[in-house]
Amino acid sequence: MAKHEGKGGDKGSGNGSGNGPTGLRALLRVPPGRGPVALKAYTPASTPGGPPDKAAALAGEPASRERLVDLQTRLFAQSTAGDPRCVLLVLQGMDTSGKGGTLKHVTAGMNPSGVRVKAFKAPTEEEREHPFLWRVRRALPGPGEIGVFDRSHYEDVLIARVRDLVPRDVWTGRYDVINNFEQSLADDGVSVVKIFLHISYEKQRERLLARLDDPDKHWKFDSGDIEERALWPAYQRAYEAALERCSTDAAPWYVVPADHKWYRNWAVRTLLLEHLELIDPKYPVADFDVERSRARLLAT
Amino acid sequence: MAKHEGKGGDKGSGNGSGNGPTGLRALLRVPPGRGPVALKAYTPASTPGGPPDKAAALAGEPASRERLVDLQTRLFAQSTAGDPRCVLLVLQGMDTSGKGGTLKHVTAGMNPSGVRVKAFKAPTEEEREHPFLWRVRRALPGPGEIGVFDRSHYEDVLIARVRDLVPRDVWTGRYDVINNFEQSLADDGVSVVKIFLHISYEKQRERLLARLDDPDKHWKFDSGDIEERALWPAYQRAYEAALERCSTDAAPWYVVPADHKWYRNWAVRTLLLEHLELIDPKYPVADFDVERSRARLLAT
Repeated sequence: MAKHEGKGGDKGSGNGSGNGPTGLRALLRVPPGRGPVALKAYTPASTPGGPPDKAAALAGEPASRERLVDLQTRLFAQSTAGDPRCVLLVLQGMDTSGKGGTLKHVTAGMNPSGVRVKAFKAPTEEEREHPFLWRVRRALPGPGEIGVFDRSHYEDVLIARVRDLVPRDVWTGRYDVINNFEQSLADDGVSVVKIFLHISYEKQRERLLARLDDPDKHWKFDSGDIEERALWPAYQRAYEAALERCSTDAAPWYVVPADHKWYRNWAVRTLLLEHLELIDPKYPVADFDVERSRARLLAT
Repeated sequence: MAKHEGKGGDKGSGNGSGNGPTGLRALLRVPPGRGPVALKAYTPASTPGGPPDKAAALAGEPASRERLVDLQTRLFAQSTAGDPRCVLLVLQGMDTSGKGGTLKHVTAGMNPSGVRVKAFKAPTEEEREHPFLWRVRRALPGPGEIGVFDRSHYEDVLIARVRDLVPRDVWTGRYDVINNFEQSLADDGVSVVKIFLHISYEKQRERLLARLDDPDKHWKFDSGDIEERALWPAYQRAYEAALERCSTDAAPWYVVPADHKWYRNWAVRTLLLEHLELIDPKYPVADFDVERSRARLLAT
């Protein structure tokens, strides 16, 4: 594991410099610069590196969560002493891939003051008047925070591409813009962790039908979801392009098979844990005289 | 209990019109317009209306939390159909009164996308250039959200008054400004729930000493905390003035005895629950043809 190296951000990418990633990161990362990505080569119902089954995943959860919450507290604590580092978890995936559920799972038990959640919807009129990264910059986590994006600037090379929301030469230029942006975040001490929740076409049908079966879930259903589903192949191609062009050492993409919720939760939690362990945040040392403070307090 | 009355905000105050509050609200509320408040009359170690002991409080927690999370989900769901209502929980109290711990406790298990947490620190230079409510307006919860303030605009009649940060005639004018502001929030469908976490002078000493005893908690300690503590009587008077002048039907103040963490958590969770039950949020009814959507999906 990389050691805390002062207050710079040069470990912001979460990758030990020179060495490749280890652990689950190595297994799920889209290797940067390796050319075309074929999602057909990834099986949404697979469980790479995971526990043998759901029961085992649940059994290991409390200890893992305790460690995660401890690391979040330390990250928050060290920012109070001036350390700028923070984490940005980006969740992308087709409808019903479980972005909301994953978000809820990984942040459970954390100190809410140190968590910054942002769900990106269709841009507002004001947002459309600005460059596409404008609204993203405004939602970035600050020092010590864990930011979680439910959708992100990647929609600007996903739905924007599939639905022709902007001309082809506009979205084709965005991959480089995104890479530069994410490199600048890493330079500033932001560990950018990008997750593609990969579900199958069949699993999506099953989950959409389940929403229709439960009146309490009708509010989550939008008839537009069926039209989006009809564009499945185009979306898969758009994701492949984003994974190929924007998985970098500074901000790697991970493909998380997401047909099994228990594996998805385990995998995202584990990836976040591994990135936090690379940061290795530390409680700041007291910058005051502890004994003198104690004496003063006891005199009150 | 008040019934959902369409999508207006006239129940935003969380008080049944004409009838006084019931439940724990009745017990802990500072009655509006009753003149001077004496904090000495409230016992920080008391447990009014609470379970008999900590074990009983913990035993009842899961069911209460389940209900709270269900209500939060409904509140969020109904906002997707245009209902503007939301909740703003304001937490105030002396250092170590447990604002952060309470915040973490009441939001646990909630969907983080529907929770908006804001911790107010000493105002930045930019914030000081604006009226004192400016930064507060920017942090308000949106429709369907539960906002939680860790400190708030009340600091502008607390530390600002005790520390003479502004002239007397400035802070004396702020009580009415705050009341008008909170009335306007209630008019817009915001249920404003203001909690004063009331601890004893002795309990604060004990908790500050505990921070000094644990090196992992030194980052939470500030030598300035001891200077603030020296101003305890002035802060109590400032709180009494805020409770007296700003407990209104539109936005009541509650005094929660907070020497016992288990009672404090139970009481704030229960007050939030009661206010949500007054809103009585409902899942929106489907605005699409469920059977037709099912048939279309099955054809894909």
